[in-house]
Amino acid sequence: MDKLIIGGIELESRLFIGTGKFPSKKVIPDVIKSSKSQVITMALRRVDLNSKEENILEYIPKDCILLPNTSGARNAEEAVRIARLAKALGCGNWIKIEVISDNKYLLPDNYETIKATEILAKEGFIVLPYMSPDLIAAKRLVEAGAAAVMPLGAPIGTNRGLKTKELIQIMIDEIDLPVIVDAGIGKPSDAAEAMEMGAAAVLVNTAIATAGDPVKMAEAFRLAVEAGRLAYTSKLGPEKRFAEASSPLTGFLNEGEK
Amino acid sequence: MDKLIIGGIELESRLFIGTGKFPSKKVIPDVIKSSKSQVITMALRRVDLNSKEENILEYIPKDCILLPNTSGARNAEEAVRIARLAKALGCGNWIKIEVISDNKYLLPDNYETIKATEILAKEGFIVLPYMSPDLIAAKRLVEAGAAAVMPLGAPIGTNRGLKTKELIQIMIDEIDLPVIVDAGIGKPSDAAEAMEMGAAAVLVNTAIATAGDPVKMAEAFRLAVEAGRLAYTSKLGPEKRFAEASSPLTGFLNEGEK
Amino acid sequence: MDKLIIGGIELESRLFIGTGKFPSKKVIPDVIKSSKSQVITMALRRVDLNSKEENILEYIPKDCILLPNTSGARNAEEAVRIARLAKALGCGNWIKIEVISDNKYLLPDNYETIKATEILAKEGFIVLPYMSPDLIAAKRLVEAGAAAVMPLGAPIGTNRGLKTKELIQIMIDEIDLPVIVDAGIGKPSDAAEAMEMGAAAVLVNTAIATAGDPVKMAEAFRLAVEAGRLAYTSKLGPEKRFAEASSPLTGFLNEGEK
Amino acid sequence: MDKLIIGGIELESRLFIGTGKFPSKKVIPDVIKSSKSQVITMALRRVDLNSKEENILEYIPKDCILLPNTSGARNAEEAVRIARLAKALGCGNWIKIEVISDNKYLLPDNYETIKATEILAKEGFIVLPYMSPDLIAAKRLVEAGAAAVMPLGAPIGTNRGLKTKELIQIMIDEIDLPVIVDAGIGKPSDAAEAMEMGAAAVLVNTAIATAGDPVKMAEAFRLAVEAGRLAYTSKLGPEKRFAEASSPLTGFLNEGEK
Repeated sequence: MDKLIIGGIELESRLFIGTGKFPSKKVIPDVIKSSKSQVITMALRRVDLNSKEENILEYIPKDCILLPNTSGARNAEEAVRIARLAKALGCGNWIKIEVISDNKYLLPDNYETIKATEILAKEGFIVLPYMSPDLIAAKRLVEAGAAAVMPLGAPIGTNRGLKTKELIQIMIDEIDLPVIVDAGIGKPSDAAEAMEMGAAAVLVNTAIATAGDPVKMAEAFRLAVEAGRLAYTSKLGPEKRFAEASSPLTGFLNEGEK
Repeated sequence: MDKLIIGGIELESRLFIGTGKFPSKKVIPDVIKSSKSQVITMALRRVDLNSKEENILEYIPKDCILLPNTSGARNAEEAVRIARLAKALGCGNWIKIEVISDNKYLLPDNYETIKATEILAKEGFIVLPYMSPDLIAAKRLVEAGAAAVMPLGAPIGTNRGLKTKELIQIMIDEIDLPVIVDAGIGKPSDAAEAMEMGAAAVLVNTAIATAGDPVKMAEAFRLAVEAGRLAYTSKLGPEKRFAEASSPLTGFLNEGEK
Repeated sequence: MDKLIIGGIELESRLFIGTGKFPSKKVIPDVIKSSKSQVITMALRRVDLNSKEENILEYIPKDCILLPNTSGARNAEEAVRIARLAKALGCGNWIKIEVISDNKYLLPDNYETIKATEILAKEGFIVLPYMSPDLIAAKRLVEAGAAAVMPLGAPIGTNRGLKTKELIQIMIDEIDLPVIVDAGIGKPSDAAEAMEMGAAAVLVNTAIATAGDPVKMAEAFRLAVEAGRLAYTSKLGPEKRFAEASSPLTGFLNEGEK
Repeated sequence: MDKLIIGGIELESRLFIGTGKFPSKKVIPDVIKSSKSQVITMALRRVDLNSKEENILEYIPKDCILLPNTSGARNAEEAVRIARLAKALGCGNWIKIEVISDNKYLLPDNYETIKATEILAKEGFIVLPYMSPDLIAAKRLVEAGAAAVMPLGAPIGTNRGLKTKELIQIMIDEIDLPVIVDAGIGKPSDAAEAMEMGAAAVLVNTAIATAGDPVKMAEAFRLAVEAGRLAYTSKLGPEKRFAEASSPLTGFLNEGEK
């Protein structure tokens, strides 16, 4: 698979994974291994060193890129504070911005997200903003210094698939940054389809965490992402309205009888 | 990947491929290799030893199972004759029945297909009938001795995808034979989706043959089929109407401030 | 709306309705009225004159065409017997053939349906067979003397919509008889879409009977069927990949300033 | 049909129409008549009284509400200027805000649209903003004083249908203003579906203007909008996974034989 470059880093894997919702954190190292993912997102709260809960960082291999997210932020200011805190805690300078004020669908606030992106990019963060798919907002994120844009396929945690395909395709076609589909991807076939459309990567969490066997599902997503990327770079054949025989069709026996 | 057993043979690969429509036959060995396919279908005409064209068999590795198809047959009788001819020519006892009288959409004739299946199964053939998806016809094919059933996702050669998903899912849920989706699959994500639904295998030809890079596209399909099968056996997480946070959501900063 | 001719009868309405599943039979006359339907189907059992239940026929206006159906028939022979009984009971010579042996999805048996159609058409019945969508089976029904063909959009009673659209469109394009979409239509928009595709009519039962207000839902379906037919005869505009302004786009103010 | 109230005005019709792209303006009065539309949008340029072209206003009946749009505006400031000009030219105080900087997909700029809405609502305009579907942006438009919100189903003029259904449904469920689907609606069935989802109205232009017979297609859309609204208020029956017989199913003949 061709490499993906984000923030100057070359990535072999185009599957980013999240660490929420797993039945037990103990499964996370195996999930990361079978996914071959190199970029792992987690809510900053889970990194809290004084937490009575186990620290999520213990479960993430050292060679992975940490992508702390600002979940819990309700506006740009809070997102910025969480991002700085993440850096101070040693999580590095990658940050996934999530600014969410809607508690039912957890839909992102593009406007506040653009504001936070601008501030953090100037501070040297590699900023990956989660967004509602919208070409014009994506263009503003480009101007604001985002390293990639992360439109949702469907609301977080729904496993509903690429419901916003039309808008995501336009973003892929029109902007120069990597487009990483985040949220909604429920099946490996959804991930493959996003990659076939030209997405640079996908981020998957719930679909792996809530699978019957999360470790094997992580592998399934890895294969699907590779399949989709390979299909994209190898160029899909055209779709047709009418049938066309793969094999010679009529008169076979007649000719044979001559 | 768990193994698929058809006609008493254990198969590692759940991707069957066809040999029609390639820009050059010379690419076929590499396509078979990158697809890791073990079952290769070809129109019997191409096996014709006296043909001025090159013989398709030269391009198929010896360890593959040949699945000659009866394309060109317009009724059961012709399909039966072609099948016997294939066996006589040394193509083995696997046969894919295609009975087609419609020249525009190349849709199969389920009724004549059932008749041919019954005759050939009794003669000891491993019969894989191509069919229009229909639960009751599939049940008749089971009774007639088919080794698997091969419903179409869309007309042959259209790359239009799983347009008959509803009917195929019912077949998968209700009959005991392997259901192999044949025709219409245009993208690796289509193949993955068919496998996630519980299809036993898929047969792909046009989507590989008409791709920009057929060898790499064959690999993409291989990965997608593995992804879809693994997702099926690992159980997909449930789809939800409303969002559910993967990460802890609100009040993060407030709590932090206490 | 242009007229539909079936069995030599000119129909103003292209919405056929069924009489099963209503919370009370008393609502049926109002449903028929608001639907403006002229063809009403009912299971023959409900016509049983000695039944302790009320006779369904009492609820159907005299100027409607009765379309008794053979539900309960598991093969051609039973369907033929029910059809003859219907005629003997005074239900006229229209018959909707339903041959169903599958109790979970209630999918029709195309093969037995073709047999019953042939017998009954020869006896002078106006035969409307319910079928699994399949071009070749539809062609056999044409030859067998059917007056129309009735492919399913989805299993009976599911309200799942036009899940078999691809196969129905091919039937509409390729055969000369009226194609009436029966079963699965769950919303007026489904009915409109079937008509836009060129269906001659639709049969709706569950979607009306299980609506909050069946009488108004019947009117909604009437309007949707008219809308869809009118759209079909008025020719839909083409679909495009890229946007095209409905209004003059750029430079308005600049020009105004000159 | 129940009435729709916007800006204090009671509307009988929930079909808004546009006046662009018609082969000849002369057909517009008949289109308005057959659509029974009461709200008619047009680009302000067409109202220009000194234009060598005919003035579009001549073709709009006096009892319709004019909805001039700001097409040509590339930012909030230009939209505001066009709105004021429209009012000064006697077009009333309804305004459809279109702020578009993308020339290929003509996608709206939600951020600038919110700014223009706030300014114009304060000046007493009845503001209907065209927007990219996004719950949070829609909430800001509510706060900014919009009278309704107009999310796109697909890019303007494409006739591609309700490609953003998921996001529009969330807007309908979560905000209190009327949601009017604007752009992309290509077929009456699309319009019916939008109304079944709970949209308050739809705006259609290209699908009527580019139809074979625009006057009849306008009538088809009128019927479809009424059908969809009636279905919404009458409550659709539930969708089911498995079949359920509309008619009594098995054993009919057996029982009859007793």
